[in-house]
Amino acid sequence: MKNETLTLNTHRLISGLVAQGVHDFIVSPGSRSTPVALLLAERVRQQSSLRLYVDVDERSAAFFALGIAKTRQVPVVLLCTSGTAAAEYLPALAEAHLTHVPLVVLTTDRPLELTNIGAPQAIEQTDLYGKQVKQSQRIDLQVAGNENADFIAFQSQRSVLAALDNPSGPVQLNLPLRKPLLPDLDITPPAIKQLAVAPVTAVLAPDTLTELVGQLQVKKVLLLAGPEETPTYRAGLLALSKKCHWPILADNLANLRGRGTVITDYDLLFQAQTRLPAALQPEVILRFGGTPVSAPLMQWLGQQTVPVYLVGAQRQLADYSRATTHVLAVDEQSFLTALTTALPAQNTGYFDDWQQISQRLQAQLNVPATLNEVTTVQTLDRALPVASRLFISNSMPIRDVEDFYQGQQVRELYCNRGANGIDGVVSTAAGMATLGGANYLLIGDLALFHDMNGLMMVRRYQLPLTVVVINNNGGGIFSFLPQASAADYFEDLFGTPQALDLAKVAALYERSYQKVTTITEFEQALAADAQLIEVVSQRTTNLQLHRQLIRTVQESLANHD
Amino acid sequence: MKNETLTLNTHRLISGLVAQGVHDFIVSPGSRSTPVALLLAERVRQQSSLRLYVDVDERSAAFFALGIAKTRQVPVVLLCTSGTAAAEYLPALAEAHLTHVPLVVLTTDRPLELTNIGAPQAIEQTDLYGKQVKQSQRIDLQVAGNENADFIAFQSQRSVLAALDNPSGPVQLNLPLRKPLLPDLDITPPAIKQLAVAPVTAVLAPDTLTELVGQLQVKKVLLLAGPEETPTYRAGLLALSKKCHWPILADNLANLRGRGTVITDYDLLFQAQTRLPAALQPEVILRFGGTPVSAPLMQWLGQQTVPVYLVGAQRQLADYSRATTHVLAVDEQSFLTALTTALPAQNTGYFDDWQQISQRLQAQLNVPATLNEVTTVQTLDRALPVASRLFISNSMPIRDVEDFYQGQQVRELYCNRGANGIDGVVSTAAGMATLGGANYLLIGDLALFHDMNGLMMVRRYQLPLTVVVINNNGGGIFSFLPQASAADYFEDLFGTPQALDLAKVAALYERSYQKVTTITEFEQALAADAQLIEVVSQRTTNLQLHRQLIRTVQESLANHD
Repeated sequence: MKNETLTLNTHRLISGLVAQGVHDFIVSPGSRSTPVALLLAERVRQQSSLRLYVDVDERSAAFFALGIAKTRQVPVVLLCTSGTAAAEYLPALAEAHLTHVPLVVLTTDRPLELTNIGAPQAIEQTDLYGKQVKQSQRIDLQVAGNENADFIAFQSQRSVLAALDNPSGPVQLNLPLRKPLLPDLDITPPAIKQLAVAPVTAVLAPDTLTELVGQLQVKKVLLLAGPEETPTYRAGLLALSKKCHWPILADNLANLRGRGTVITDYDLLFQAQTRLPAALQPEVILRFGGTPVSAPLMQWLGQQTVPVYLVGAQRQLADYSRATTHVLAVDEQSFLTALTTALPAQNTGYFDDWQQISQRLQAQLNVPATLNEVTTVQTLDRALPVASRLFISNSMPIRDVEDFYQGQQVRELYCNRGANGIDGVVSTAAGMATLGGANYLLIGDLALFHDMNGLMMVRRYQLPLTVVVINNNGGGIFSFLPQASAADYFEDLFGTPQALDLAKVAALYERSYQKVTTITEFEQALAADAQLIEVVSQRTTNLQLHRQLIRTVQESLANHD
Repeated sequence: MKNETLTLNTHRLISGLVAQGVHDFIVSPGSRSTPVALLLAERVRQQSSLRLYVDVDERSAAFFALGIAKTRQVPVVLLCTSGTAAAEYLPALAEAHLTHVPLVVLTTDRPLELTNIGAPQAIEQTDLYGKQVKQSQRIDLQVAGNENADFIAFQSQRSVLAALDNPSGPVQLNLPLRKPLLPDLDITPPAIKQLAVAPVTAVLAPDTLTELVGQLQVKKVLLLAGPEETPTYRAGLLALSKKCHWPILADNLANLRGRGTVITDYDLLFQAQTRLPAALQPEVILRFGGTPVSAPLMQWLGQQTVPVYLVGAQRQLADYSRATTHVLAVDEQSFLTALTTALPAQNTGYFDDWQQISQRLQAQLNVPATLNEVTTVQTLDRALPVASRLFISNSMPIRDVEDFYQGQQVRELYCNRGANGIDGVVSTAAGMATLGGANYLLIGDLALFHDMNGLMMVRRYQLPLTVVVINNNGGGIFSFLPQASAADYFEDLFGTPQALDLAKVAALYERSYQKVTTITEFEQALAADAQLIEVVSQRTTNLQLHRQLIRTVQESLANHD
């Protein structure tokens, strides 16, 4: 048997990952990673529940892994060779760390005798990711013996568990490897001792629940649902809201819009004026999910003096409004079930008041029937298939979806809403599309340009993804910011037009392409499953449109007060 | 005056950078970086010696900065917004750190009250780059007062000096900024106290030099010149070599080939056999420059028991052969001048012996006159203009240049030969092309794909760069490695064909394009200044060609021994 120790230990490493629930592996080609890559490929061929993807660009690979992990809600493994390849993972890891997405990063490395001594393709990989990962460990796959075999199987499983543990996030396993690197492809994987981890649920102490129930009776309670791409407690929140007639201000990424007692217009409302009409003022606020997309909502929240409960096991008191007065680090679904059971049904008319304002605001919003950045979002809202997935880029798209997407159908919405970067968006959406079904990406031209390499994965694995590009030739969001007044420098520094010809992008990545200029054309392109749809916009016109719509909202509110 | 403190302090920051020799600024668009970006743009408009480039993709921006800094030999400044944008710099910083390239990275950040608390676009940026930078400091630009003003000007200058100090490398300045971010564009920059740094030179103590001269007289001394893209001591090394008739085994990146007593064939020789013919065996070895591209040379070096002197102020004993017996951390040019002066002229016939073997080897190399990966390099060697620059990608191109580029004309050759990544190659070459003149890039299809975004900078700034792509549809180097035997998995994991249509790449980035299939066509395309030239190759044919050439060398050596 050739290279037996390395082969057996690599099998143990892989078995440990699989034992703890890893099904997806994203590999970037390289030399140092050879034993792990080959034995992984062999395992994937033998075990049909496993999937392996190859991505040449490690930056794209890491976002692709993020896309799979955040939509499937499973831990995903990355594998790369030594050197800058490993450094390429950092942006996606920073995002995964903030959004609690479990990733296990296998960075293969030069052995100790070849690090920091001028050897090629060797950078310092220990703690390469600093505070952007939850932990960083090292495994030596080339030490023989039972003691070490047990260590590898244990450590490998432990790394997945660490990634999954609340708050979930990325972990690094650094694997120094000496030549020869070629494993034996004819060895049966040895058995490993498997770790069974009993699921636990964090619940409130009975007295605390009773106390809370007392505080919530017959009150104007406002439910704030921030981004929560997992479906774990949606039903529970809707049930509570329905029983007590409490409105849910639901971020698009809470994936609750269009259902039950949900309000969607709060961001427009707070853009129009910084305070609420008196009838809408809450007495208690219960917050769920991550940081809302709506900055005006958070500004308003920061000024509130009523009790604010922050609920959730992953949340770690991340609240930049600093309005939180009570932290309930509980499992949301259990908490919601217990609370809804304990509370009597009630209706103070609070939801109706919110709904009335919302309906009037919607009635008075007068969006021109041209195809623009607002009607693009409204068209997606209206026309996308039920049960499809929509990935939304940061910058303008997520803001427009926040304001103009009502949730007319039940779909799943996703966004990289941890560090809010415009990088890696295409690759993350491509990862999402590995789930199959109907998948859409709404993105601007700059973010598309930043991560065009992601389209290679779409092409290579024939992933079902329709990319809708709002092409305003540059960074549209900056027109909304104070620097727009610095006319001499604005276009060079912020507008940054790239004059990207999207027809040529589509040709390069073999996407069917359609440019649309009317809402009807856009609907037809969506219906025809065009793979890359270009919506042309102008940044100045878009600014005017948004300003005009906010004025409309202001008038609607003024007439009422 | 609006936002006076921020404006004045940002001016001091910029003045500090300029005072210590920064001329080039690479900015990526973003919101948090607004005050620095705007005041930089204003300064650049006022001061014609300064240059500002805008790159939407921060990963590409960092490699672009690296390309400028390594070819101009000056410190270069990067500026980005907060979040994953900053994380995108890591791969280029890892490379700059290993190759001692001075970069100053300005990462703008959220203020303290908005970090680690769920605020958008905020990741932990303190020590973000860990051991890949020399130092990481923080400057608060929003504190008024003379004390603070002095601190900013001092710290800003100190950061450039830290980047330049031996061994040079990247440093981070993290800049937390609170809103409002818009600076006043009508303020005259305040004067700052400038630091004058006296240049020092590390020289050998006289006794040590005398001792060394004694050891070097009438000996077979082998000079090894590793990568050294700066021209500081080339003349000195050539003068020493000429006076004593000592051969220089010159890495291509030493930029000495084709001049004086230089030998270029050692890598082929050591590929063919691991020992030297007896006549070529040295009694003393003097090493200059970084880690040679030739791994066989380093393997041979590791087995030597003769004295090995490692010479150079930047080197830090980076020697993975571990053959070094003496470290001379001196300024190379001063050392070479002193040594050459002190040594009497001598000729033991040692260079002639090397030259004889080299000439026979060259005479017997029988490269087919078709256009292949070897003749591509030979054609560049023969046909590129004098005084042009050639950037070489990692993986196969740098190895082929090592073996088949003789230096027929005086040109400057560059490569990212610290971490040896295939990432960022196009952007680094684009940075090089900002120097003007005639610039070429030799790259494979995978590396081109990895960093296509770099072509946007070439297009946007109309940089004079001819890109020669060897298109063998995948990772050619892996065919040379043991994993080529794992036939079942090889193509998926290592070959990784991307089927990139280079004509479409050229169209997207508005490059004139030509596919060439013969040497003559290739020469014509070069003469016609085609901007993207595709050389089609097959990985299997290429492997056979290389194997055949090594057999020729073996025969040539065997006939002689």
